Amino acid sequence: MYGSFSAGKIACANVLSDLYSEGVTECDNMLMLLGVSTKMTEKERDVVIPLMMRGFRDCALEAGCDVTGGQTVLNPWCTIGGVATTVCQPNEFILPESAEVGDVLVLTKPLGTQVAVNAHQWLDQPERWEKIKHSVTEELVLKGYERAMDSMVRLNRTAAMLMHKYNAHGATDVTGFGVLGHAANLAKNQKAEVSFVIHNLPVIAKMASIAKACGNIFKLLQGYSAETSGGLLICLPRDSAAPFCKEIEKLEGRAAWIVGIVEKGDRTARIIERPRVIEIPAIEKEGQLW
Amino acid sequence: MYGSFSAGKIACANVLSDLYSEGVTECDNMLMLLGVSTKMTEKERDVVIPLMMRGFRDCALEAGCDVTGGQTVLNPWCTIGGVATTVCQPNEFILPESAEVGDVLVLTKPLGTQVAVNAHQWLDQPERWEKIKHSVTEELVLKGYERAMDSMVRLNRTAAMLMHKYNAHGATDVTGFGVLGHAANLAKNQKAEVSFVIHNLPVIAKMASIAKACGNIFKLLQGYSAETSGGLLICLPRDSAAPFCKEIEKLEGRAAWIVGIVEKGDRTARIIERPRVIEIPAIEKEGQLW
Repeated sequence: MYGSFSAGKIACANVLSDLYSEGVTECDNMLMLLGVSTKMTEKERDVVIPLMMRGFRDCALEAGCDVTGGQTVLNPWCTIGGVATTVCQPNEFILPESAEVGDVLVLTKPLGTQVAVNAHQWLDQPERWEKIKHSVTEELVLKGYERAMDSMVRLNRTAAMLMHKYNAHGATDVTGFGVLGHAANLAKNQKAEVSFVIHNLPVIAKMASIAKACGNIFKLLQGYSAETSGGLLICLPRDSAAPFCKEIEKLEGRAAWIVGIVEKGDRTARIIERPRVIEIPAIEKEGQLW
Repeated sequence: MYGSFSAGKIACANVLSDLYSEGVTECDNMLMLLGVSTKMTEKERDVVIPLMMRGFRDCALEAGCDVTGGQTVLNPWCTIGGVATTVCQPNEFILPESAEVGDVLVLTKPLGTQVAVNAHQWLDQPERWEKIKHSVTEELVLKGYERAMDSMVRLNRTAAMLMHKYNAHGATDVTGFGVLGHAANLAKNQKAEVSFVIHNLPVIAKMASIAKACGNIFKLLQGYSAETSGGLLICLPRDSAAPFCKEIEKLEGRAAWIVGIVEKGDRTARIIERPRVIEIPAIEKEGQLW
């Protein structure tokens, strides 16, 4: 039940993230798209679906936006998604195309959400669990899952606001293609002849070792592990990056990290051979989430 | 293959219909939402999915609109849908709320698309076909299917344009809730104390007898049979209705029909006890669709 409510919130945060990645901070209108599973009993539907819808709507309200419509269909799988629309002035958005040589790249949420969600499912699948149990404890898997949830339900709205304050040169959100996939898309879209080089990978604690233990199927450290409702990857002028990270941490109680640089190049993106993996949090503190 | 291309067109026409029902004739932007079936082989996907996408895009182009984005996901069922957005001036849309006593109701496409599509599927299901085979020939089922396809791929855009010319007082498109379901929604939304009374049901030829033969599961003549990409149900001043129908027939080569009236009432809608069922076309003409 907790999961259904969060699923709604995560879906909404993920939809809004596309607006935030262009520095748009106000969403005018949201639609919710719901697929109700044909395999659920009527009772299951009556519990799960209202929770998902409430999670979605609560997240929209948190973003200062109303859900005015949408569509519900029957589907074998339970699905939730939506559409966010806004009409705004040219000074209210930042096109993702103005990176300059010397800029730095900032990431506003840690990577590893897919690994965390999968590892959590594997707690109930002895065969799968067998493969990773030597690299992690059940307790740390649960904690990783809580951290992933906390990260996925979080809006990228503060980051979008700060993009204006700190003169960001463009951004992308990090979702299905992984951090490198999205970095590559962003690089391809630049006006200047630049390339992105990623040195640091902030990852939810223990997710890198789980990913390694299960045979690198996620390609987490290669930058291709899918994220759901991931952070923004933002190009900032060099001097703005540290104050940006400081202010987001002050406002949100969650860190952001400098992960790479913009250099002269052919509009591509890469991760250096031995990136520094930053475990988030660095030290496990009892009773605390981060 | 023909079906996949048409499915894309129908989905697009169905999405646009929401704009057209408010008299909006220009769509600024479309997104396509695609669910690629997990049960298809790779080869099937490579044939079916591009056709669906092309159908959707072709229909959008016909509407003078671009598909600028969207999302593709894996799903057990193959699904297609989308979002249509427009930003416009107050004089460019007609709120569905100004029906007046004495208005008449016009319907711009015949009913029975769901019956037609189901009957067509039943040609391959001996048990089902057994039940309806005495009421219809295979040839007429095929023809009914062609007519339903012709109707579903058709845009309601001309009707939306003519709503302005003939001072329509509001409209709804007819889709999943059937003609009476949507009429009831429209009635509920009126400012004046009016009710809608439907006297005539234009139905794709033979669909009424098929619906009857299979035990009235569709509730077609009760007005509740779901339509996909159905016509607009429009409130028009009494003197405008006949010229409206005449002009749409001239422009589109497809008829529209006066189906009911607006009388004083409590914002409800009903179908009279013995509605006149109008078979479309009235007489079967060899080699012609309508």
